[in-house]
Amino acid sequence: MSKLVIVGTVAFDAIETPFGKTDKILGGAATFIGLASSQFNVDAAVVSVVGGDFPQEHLDLLSDRNIDISGIEIVKEGKTFFWSGKYHNDMNSRDTLATELNVLADFNPIVPENYKNAEIVMLGNLHPNVQLSVLEQMTKKPQLVILDTMNFWMDCALTELHNVMKKVDVITINDAEARQLTGEYSLVVAARKIHTMGPKYVVIKKGEHGALLFHDDNVFFAPALPLEEVFDPTGAGDTFAGGFAGYLAKTDDVSFENMKNAVIYGSTLASFCVEKFGTERMVNLSSEDVYKRLQQFKSLTQFDIELA
Amino acid sequence: MSKLVIVGTVAFDAIETPFGKTDKILGGAATFIGLASSQFNVDAAVVSVVGGDFPQEHLDLLSDRNIDISGIEIVKEGKTFFWSGKYHNDMNSRDTLATELNVLADFNPIVPENYKNAEIVMLGNLHPNVQLSVLEQMTKKPQLVILDTMNFWMDCALTELHNVMKKVDVITINDAEARQLTGEYSLVVAARKIHTMGPKYVVIKKGEHGALLFHDDNVFFAPALPLEEVFDPTGAGDTFAGGFAGYLAKTDDVSFENMKNAVIYGSTLASFCVEKFGTERMVNLSSEDVYKRLQQFKSLTQFDIELA
Repeated sequence: MSKLVIVGTVAFDAIETPFGKTDKILGGAATFIGLASSQFNVDAAVVSVVGGDFPQEHLDLLSDRNIDISGIEIVKEGKTFFWSGKYHNDMNSRDTLATELNVLADFNPIVPENYKNAEIVMLGNLHPNVQLSVLEQMTKKPQLVILDTMNFWMDCALTELHNVMKKVDVITINDAEARQLTGEYSLVVAARKIHTMGPKYVVIKKGEHGALLFHDDNVFFAPALPLEEVFDPTGAGDTFAGGFAGYLAKTDDVSFENMKNAVIYGSTLASFCVEKFGTERMVNLSSEDVYKRLQQFKSLTQFDIELA
Repeated sequence: MSKLVIVGTVAFDAIETPFGKTDKILGGAATFIGLASSQFNVDAAVVSVVGGDFPQEHLDLLSDRNIDISGIEIVKEGKTFFWSGKYHNDMNSRDTLATELNVLADFNPIVPENYKNAEIVMLGNLHPNVQLSVLEQMTKKPQLVILDTMNFWMDCALTELHNVMKKVDVITINDAEARQLTGEYSLVVAARKIHTMGPKYVVIKKGEHGALLFHDDNVFFAPALPLEEVFDPTGAGDTFAGGFAGYLAKTDDVSFENMKNAVIYGSTLASFCVEKFGTERMVNLSSEDVYKRLQQFKSLTQFDIELA
């Protein structure tokens, strides 16, 4: 089993969807990544920052799942990062209603001493310089560095993003972002261009249309599970990344063949995430639930054409 | 092996895409369906109508592939159905520039005597009453009837469409059409509603995002092969349907499990169709090409998570 370091936001979200709205609830990329990876009982630590307003019970929720939270700095006099958004009817697009950086504005990530030799590093969506700072603290070259990012950093910190991209093995990005980053419409061509920017493995997330994993000339595809309804997409991409990273950490195998399985696990966990608001479904998820859904994924995609 | 009857247009298309444009070239639903099904060397007949302007070489192209064309009526004094369209840059949407029904306006399909007992009937996109007329000519209840249709008939012949839907086993339809037909955004819910309208099997085509096969509570998904570029999407849906029907006819097995394979074959053949204008790629397609691409489909989708 590999050690896993996760850096990302631990935050408050307020979400509005066609199905309802929430007050401030637990959110943040590292929260979703951590919860997803905890399904694999890996040795993981979250590096983040929260304010004095952040409830102890939310921190307990992570540590109860054996996630090391010693790298979550608590700025007593500060306020926790807050994001608010409203999803449109198609659930694929959303408007950001509020972004209050608060303690995130001066976030200086500190990797706990005993995780500086972690084999897998998961850089959740954050300013590229913060992601880079985490990599620079590692005392041993990690076996695998996974980067998640978003269009926001392409708009306002592209040079910094390119710098961190040169140092990572895997990037996870959505289809619109892959197109923005490369100026290419074809995702096959876009992935090839992204390879030349650094990452040997490119995961392109297409939301309800699944996810593609590219490596050299190889491609693997995992559909999203067809669901009756998507209740709240918030955190689905982070949950995917957490499942991907957690599975690789557990199996201690970063081959392309094993990454295919990791993509399936990521998709499986993301399919739960969207069933309830925020983290609600992820904190009430049994290994039996996961097992059953993996079976659904298998019957959804596996066929029986004999080829020599 | 089952006999296959195909009804649909045999036509001229003029196509414009971001990659170029064509003069009047061979097109039509039954043409693409026939060419795709001919990959399986099945005993197939096309029922259609053309005008006196239709070149003998196009008819030869079908009969050279052992497709029975005795059901293609030639109206000497009439003109062949003509469609012209222009694709937008994303290749997912198009404008119809011209639709000249010509001989199709009075099309009265005649199923050849020795195909009236065919086990599989493929109703290509046409007025629902024409599709129904073919079914009424069958002297033996077919083992499987497959219906393809489009939004145009939902707009102007919805009652007739519902009539023919009651008599078919499989419907193939795209995602926007499934939503239009049912008023449901979720494709899972839409498929369930379509089941109640008649078809026990519902295939929802999502273009570059693949295809879903629904049957009761079972779902199967085939991705589209990620391509560097889509040159011309015309006929891809018909080619999918032809591959689906042809594979089922060849294997003489209409179980859900075998339909999964049929969906994979349909997707495989459609991935060739879009590589060139019109039928160009489909008439120059070797069984080796198909075999290699099936291997690509397998490595694209198959994974190795052990589940009891």
